[in-house]
Amino acid sequence: MNIVKGNMIIGQSGGPTAVINQSLVGAVKEAMKHPEITGIYGMKHGILGVLNEDFLDLQQEDNEHLEKIANTPASALGTCRYKPTPEDCEKVFHIFEKYNVKYWFYIGGNDTAETCHIVNEIARKNDYELRVFHIPKTIDNDLMVTDHCPGYPSAAKYVAMSFMGNNLDNKALQGVKIDIVMGRHAGWLTAAAALGKKHDDDGPHLIYLPEHPVALEQIVNDIDECYDKYGRCVVAVSEGVKTPDGKLLGEGFIKEKDKHGNVQLSGTGALGDMLSAYVRDNSKHNDLRVRSDTLGYAQRSFPGVYSEVDRQEARMVGEEAVKYAMQGDIDGSVALKRIGDYAVEPDLAKLKDVAQQTKLVPKEFINEAGNGVTQAFIDYASPLVGDLPVVERLKEVPVPKN
Amino acid sequence: MNIVKGNMIIGQSGGPTAVINQSLVGAVKEAMKHPEITGIYGMKHGILGVLNEDFLDLQQEDNEHLEKIANTPASALGTCRYKPTPEDCEKVFHIFEKYNVKYWFYIGGNDTAETCHIVNEIARKNDYELRVFHIPKTIDNDLMVTDHCPGYPSAAKYVAMSFMGNNLDNKALQGVKIDIVMGRHAGWLTAAAALGKKHDDDGPHLIYLPEHPVALEQIVNDIDECYDKYGRCVVAVSEGVKTPDGKLLGEGFIKEKDKHGNVQLSGTGALGDMLSAYVRDNSKHNDLRVRSDTLGYAQRSFPGVYSEVDRQEARMVGEEAVKYAMQGDIDGSVALKRIGDYAVEPDLAKLKDVAQQTKLVPKEFINEAGNGVTQAFIDYASPLVGDLPVVERLKEVPVPKN
Repeated sequence: MNIVKGNMIIGQSGGPTAVINQSLVGAVKEAMKHPEITGIYGMKHGILGVLNEDFLDLQQEDNEHLEKIANTPASALGTCRYKPTPEDCEKVFHIFEKYNVKYWFYIGGNDTAETCHIVNEIARKNDYELRVFHIPKTIDNDLMVTDHCPGYPSAAKYVAMSFMGNNLDNKALQGVKIDIVMGRHAGWLTAAAALGKKHDDDGPHLIYLPEHPVALEQIVNDIDECYDKYGRCVVAVSEGVKTPDGKLLGEGFIKEKDKHGNVQLSGTGALGDMLSAYVRDNSKHNDLRVRSDTLGYAQRSFPGVYSEVDRQEARMVGEEAVKYAMQGDIDGSVALKRIGDYAVEPDLAKLKDVAQQTKLVPKEFINEAGNGVTQAFIDYASPLVGDLPVVERLKEVPVPKN
Repeated sequence: MNIVKGNMIIGQSGGPTAVINQSLVGAVKEAMKHPEITGIYGMKHGILGVLNEDFLDLQQEDNEHLEKIANTPASALGTCRYKPTPEDCEKVFHIFEKYNVKYWFYIGGNDTAETCHIVNEIARKNDYELRVFHIPKTIDNDLMVTDHCPGYPSAAKYVAMSFMGNNLDNKALQGVKIDIVMGRHAGWLTAAAALGKKHDDDGPHLIYLPEHPVALEQIVNDIDECYDKYGRCVVAVSEGVKTPDGKLLGEGFIKEKDKHGNVQLSGTGALGDMLSAYVRDNSKHNDLRVRSDTLGYAQRSFPGVYSEVDRQEARMVGEEAVKYAMQGDIDGSVALKRIGDYAVEPDLAKLKDVAQQTKLVPKEFINEAGNGVTQAFIDYASPLVGDLPVVERLKEVPVPKN
């Protein structure tokens, strides 16, 4: 085995998740077992921590403390949304050289894999042996190669539970309830709204994903039809839903853009408010009670609501990244391979196969009308999310009228 | 003991809570022990169920089923926001006569207590022995007499956990985060945002309640000061916060009114969006990253997040209402009396002392600056909410720069 002695650096990038610290702790604790890893440094706020040479000494953390951090949502090292320029990536490489960094682990989504890939190519050109591993995390579940992404199952559980509550609330106090779920390009998280359904008439009754464009008029028709049938309607709408002309459903209403020039959809209630008003004004039912919520940061950082499978898998991908790094001069992205129903084993994907790309919800997971998910999606997602709270309804035996 | 033989009716009114079905099941199971209660009828959708003679036979529900319903959030009988007219109340009384109803239990807030009071007075005038009990529930915690309201502790726990997550998220990805919390008149639920704070620099850093008017400029100044100190800021804002001129903070921006003519604050992101934009535009910091979430229906109906104390107390007030009704020709509202730190015992309040009135957060629970809560509030609310998830942060020992 090819042993390289040197320091290890680990960081977290992009939006937090409920289990991203499991991956951090998994990698750090595995690294502590290997004497060839001399120092274990944490990047403060992702790539900015490298550019600013702002590192934390993770060997100062004790075991008990690390276990508590593993169970804490959001990114313990701090994170960032800064996308490094090619010059930044050159600088990152030179800082790695200066600090004798031989192992680099970076937990994040496809942008993070891209940064890993670029810095890895620079190291290769410079004949510097840097072992670079991308550790997957994203609540969006949109990374290529891997069966699913750590972070998604816990976020999906939160969303499923939230819709279970919304369904019960809407059954108790009838009307139309529209909830906006995170997911700019991929509808995985919104699809999870269906996971808590038990009875045929349980909501969400309608689910709209970015993968299937829909006209506003169609949404109103679907809601009216549902309301005729059940006297109520719960709707899950992905923030990235598009109209058939390719524009975002909320585009005309939301002015703000983030630093990448993207329309800022999270942290704003505009899409939900606009949709509610549109439905109320255009429904065939007069005085329709329409409410909306925009599910917020709780989707990614609510403490105490986890998928146990997600916890274990997030820990495992962190550990496996370090184990792979110990095997030789390799690099890549740790992927999860599903076996049967249900187990996973780790797999190694190429950095460039994960970088920049987005895995969309496939056609077989979306119903024909484009307003719901199929049993195939439920079968895919249920083992990831695990048990949901048990809820029950009355038998509703009527008392004969006097 | 004065025994009256007849039917019992029970209903749920107003917004759902996580434990309102505990009160329902507590009352129903207690009633099943008393042979003088001949039929146990549930009102479908509150007072509308009486007006429509739409009753459910709750004796058809078995024990195991009822226990699952007790643990299910939202109102299993259905609820309504309809406020009965004086004519409706007369009609309710006559329907009670027709169905030989001698016991009436109605779970709800101060409007519900008012309805109980009015119908009770009609029965009294008609020399009809109707034993009427209001069973308290509201996430707003704004009922008079009682130390606190069933429903509040679980909602407070959800809010506290939500802010714990927001604090961690904001520490990981710095900026300003503004979260809007339910509470039109009373700030109890918003105050609960502070319950998960552990370190001095933990958010929420600022908390604004309806009880303490604040100017927009003051909010911006407070946020700037916090940002200077910590490089970040988490803000809890009650939907009912007012400016010093007595107007709602969001009034100019929110056009929609509900059927009572009140500005509709829940289910809309407008206040959070408006505040975010205002803070961004008026902060002394350029390019401040400001995000907002409006905590939605999850505050009142998220399954799986409960206060254990709340579960037990909600069950108890349901049981106690029936026990009181068995004691003689009395009526009232079941209150909780706090003993020491921490126990409660049931108490009986007069219906008219609970009807229509609102208990505000007292001055001693709000800090002098009007932008936070005091230790006295923490001491009041912590035993209600109980244990919160354990979260931890890194020791953050820096690596010396090369």
